[in-house]
Amino acid sequence: MPWWPEDEWRRRWDGEDCGLCADAHLPTNPFGELIAATEWSYLRLAANQTHAGYCVAVARRHAPELHHLTPAERSGFWGDVAALGQAIGDVLQPVKLANLSMGFRMPHVHCHVIPQYPADDPLGPLDPQAGDVRLAPEAWAERIDALRARFLALVT
Amino acid sequence: MPWWPEDEWRRRWDGEDCGLCADAHLPTNPFGELIAATEWSYLRLAANQTHAGYCVAVARRHAPELHHLTPAERSGFWGDVAALGQAIGDVLQPVKLANLSMGFRMPHVHCHVIPQYPADDPLGPLDPQAGDVRLAPEAWAERIDALRARFLALVT
Repeated sequence: MPWWPEDEWRRRWDGEDCGLCADAHLPTNPFGELIAATEWSYLRLAANQTHAGYCVAVARRHAPELHHLTPAERSGFWGDVAALGQAIGDVLQPVKLANLSMGFRMPHVHCHVIPQYPADDPLGPLDPQAGDVRLAPEAWAERIDALRARFLALVT
Repeated sequence: MPWWPEDEWRRRWDGEDCGLCADAHLPTNPFGELIAATEWSYLRLAANQTHAGYCVAVARRHAPELHHLTPAERSGFWGDVAALGQAIGDVLQPVKLANLSMGFRMPHVHCHVIPQYPADDPLGPLDPQAGDVRLAPEAWAERIDALRARFLALVT
């Protein structure tokens, strides 16, 4: 399909109808669970754990593109993405992290942090939507706890 | 294929055998041409212009992951990525920018800035390697000049 209808895209762009403004701060939503909230960002574990440790960082304030954030907001957001990646690395030992900031569905600055492991193909492309691995409740809670503890130790 | 052989990956990770350390600063290399260099980054127009305005920002210092940069380096790099995206937006009027920082081939922080246009499919996935549009020399030089002028106006 081509891009979204112009009026629909404009409402998302302007923040009038933005799914991330609506649910990025919630403890749980259909896409994952909140790990932590900082001055700049919401850090969430993605429900789809095909890539173990896959998280999403969402800027607190609605802004469609990186250059719409203030320098302080942008630095704070990427500092949080970096700490989140470091936490994922410490807990799960991936071979590499990917940081994908697109916003083709929701033009509100966010970044998919997707760990890669030895069985993954480095020649990509990488599809954040691929697979559908859901953890059992105990494993899910353990992963949240481990990432939250490590992230908070890094940022405080 | 699975991930790179461990010793090969280690040499790239440590910067002993890093293609971006070797050629990101060059005026031209097989992957594109230098638009500008700042304190933090090299900004390059990609040879493959399937997505008009596709650029790559490369951190000056070798570091495999975002958390290996200092806070000043990280903020400076993302400030450059944001200004580059703003320049692309001003010159080419895309509907959205994608910022993809992976490093699966070269673990040296860099970011693909890939504009999306009304004919593009927002449901992705987005493959930076897709297509192979090469501009004629005059059109290439015009695009470099326009992006360079706008980028430099934004950062200075």
